[in-house]
Amino acid sequence: MRSPLGERFLCQGLGICMRTIWWEDNFVRMIDQRLLPGRLEVPAYNNYQDVAWTIKEMVIRGAPAIGAAAGFGMVLAARQSQATTRAALLADLERAGDVLRAARPTAVNLSWGVERLLRRAQDPALETPDAIRVAMLAEAQALADEDVEVNKRMGRNGAAVIPDGARILHHCNTGSLATVDYGTALGVVRAAHEEGKRVHVWVDETRPRLQGARLTAWELMQDEIPMTLIADNAAGLLMRTGQVDVVLYGADRVAANGDVANKVGSYNVAVLAQENGIPCYSVVPTSTIDLNLPTGDDIPIEQRPAEEVTMVGGVRIAPEHVAVYNPAFDVTPHRYLTGIITEEGIVYPPFREGLRRVKETAEARRR
Amino acid sequence: MRSPLGERFLCQGLGICMRTIWWEDNFVRMIDQRLLPGRLEVPAYNNYQDVAWTIKEMVIRGAPAIGAAAGFGMVLAARQSQATTRAALLADLERAGDVLRAARPTAVNLSWGVERLLRRAQDPALETPDAIRVAMLAEAQALADEDVEVNKRMGRNGAAVIPDGARILHHCNTGSLATVDYGTALGVVRAAHEEGKRVHVWVDETRPRLQGARLTAWELMQDEIPMTLIADNAAGLLMRTGQVDVVLYGADRVAANGDVANKVGSYNVAVLAQENGIPCYSVVPTSTIDLNLPTGDDIPIEQRPAEEVTMVGGVRIAPEHVAVYNPAFDVTPHRYLTGIITEEGIVYPPFREGLRRVKETAEARRR
Repeated sequence: MRSPLGERFLCQGLGICMRTIWWEDNFVRMIDQRLLPGRLEVPAYNNYQDVAWTIKEMVIRGAPAIGAAAGFGMVLAARQSQATTRAALLADLERAGDVLRAARPTAVNLSWGVERLLRRAQDPALETPDAIRVAMLAEAQALADEDVEVNKRMGRNGAAVIPDGARILHHCNTGSLATVDYGTALGVVRAAHEEGKRVHVWVDETRPRLQGARLTAWELMQDEIPMTLIADNAAGLLMRTGQVDVVLYGADRVAANGDVANKVGSYNVAVLAQENGIPCYSVVPTSTIDLNLPTGDDIPIEQRPAEEVTMVGGVRIAPEHVAVYNPAFDVTPHRYLTGIITEEGIVYPPFREGLRRVKETAEARRR
Repeated sequence: MRSPLGERFLCQGLGICMRTIWWEDNFVRMIDQRLLPGRLEVPAYNNYQDVAWTIKEMVIRGAPAIGAAAGFGMVLAARQSQATTRAALLADLERAGDVLRAARPTAVNLSWGVERLLRRAQDPALETPDAIRVAMLAEAQALADEDVEVNKRMGRNGAAVIPDGARILHHCNTGSLATVDYGTALGVVRAAHEEGKRVHVWVDETRPRLQGARLTAWELMQDEIPMTLIADNAAGLLMRTGQVDVVLYGADRVAANGDVANKVGSYNVAVLAQENGIPCYSVVPTSTIDLNLPTGDDIPIEQRPAEEVTMVGGVRIAPEHVAVYNPAFDVTPHRYLTGIITEEGIVYPPFREGLRRVKETAEARRR
């Protein structure tokens, strides 16, 4: 996934050479992640309501990728708007932003992307609706480009904690597919690999939606990074028997105290890591840090449909009418984390001060 | 599952009223657990090689049920043997026992069942091959009947630690289907429910073979015991947020020091329970206690085929040619267990002395 070609028929079977999401000919295009690894399809959307739907249905997922989708969604909203005045357009954008923000509750990058585009639109220097529309496309493009650059810096920072020969346990998908390109936690794996370190990744399958088995395994196999797939249940055995050197995962929201919301099961591997003396890192862009939330208890946890648990690839695996509880995320209290790896450096406990510092550094860099 | 009728067409749709395994008209019959909950089929077998195959392929699974299958398998071996002398028959039985024992390595009940039948066959009072054959059938029947009785005592003993209103997290399947009838850990749930206690069971799906989603959910729904299905990954969140009062699971082998081998992922929930101050019990018949093994490190852990992880109900969920690690069991070191519940009482730490005592009591009872 190295350039935004979008020529899927050319690329299919030759390895992937496209971003997860990009702008092309007045459309936003994105890989439909629900179909991988069986099928690679790259649908195109020209209205923000469809983009909100793709986020809700997890056509696109991963906090940074959702942030980029929010950016392009706002561009589409600006183009859909019939507004002829600046004020009318800004009002339409506020409404579209609310629709996009409502698509999923946990990843803060969604509202972060919406707000970044709204702020750009509100620039008093942009006097006409068309000037706003042009500026917003440039801003969404910049957001997507920055994501790739941010991931590469995050990867380099994180690679410092990956020893040569490391056996890494990885949860969910945090790779190119979870971002615009390269990845967060998987970006750290890629960077270590590119530096010539020998690494091996235990890819947990990440029930219920199997992002590990479907997406992370697929990405690592494309890049020829050594990996082995496991059921989530096998993580404890591997850690207890000394076969894991470091645990890595991403995050959908980091609270001001360092508590981290991430894909359900992240808390489990963090506890197992601590119990076995294994370092555990969450890898996030600073855009995922939400200083407005004091602790992880304040992070909203999305509940997803029962069918994600009872059906796998169209096959029913549980009795009809069974009751299901299906939280999409859990919260890892900060005391289980060795560090939080960002593009502005690694934050160690106590997290509060360090998180504020990297957030400020990142904002200063963008100004 | 209350009587060994074996009239599946009568029972299907009306609730289940058969044992998991029983002897009928010169055949051993067993529910094919690979097909549940979608289909209830009860194939019949008349040779021990097929019974070894059913154990290996997990047509029948669960340590006590495997023990009963071993017993009936030995009966079939005695009937298959053309031996006309006592010595020749005993030699054939030794060979058949080796085949049955080799079917799966972890559950000690398999070799325990084989040895119990061999011991019966070797009784010097049985002077002819036919006398041995008759005595062995009675012994296998007794083994199966005792399993039900043992489970009910285990259930009553265990119900003492289940408070009214308890929210129980349960791993894998330990119910009627894992035994001849009633169950071990699920027997404790049944007993508490029968005593009028309000219980709610969080049924984890238990990847990769989904015994929780397919079998435990099905059994509890048949008995109308309140339950909710979760992905294994959601267990940590439930424990951390105070929604679990007790963790229960079975075991396939208990070492002399109280270390317990059970379905992979058991260690994970035990660690999560301890971290959150939640009691965690392994529920086993004394036949599962192996005093010959000093610690859990000595328990052989079976590796199962990759397809159990990469395929679900015939649907591929991971890339072709992906490397897979698929251990069937893990070991919970005894320090994570609050107690081990048996038919002869609950053993608390330090386990070594208590395990020897309940094992001796059970053996004295059978003499």
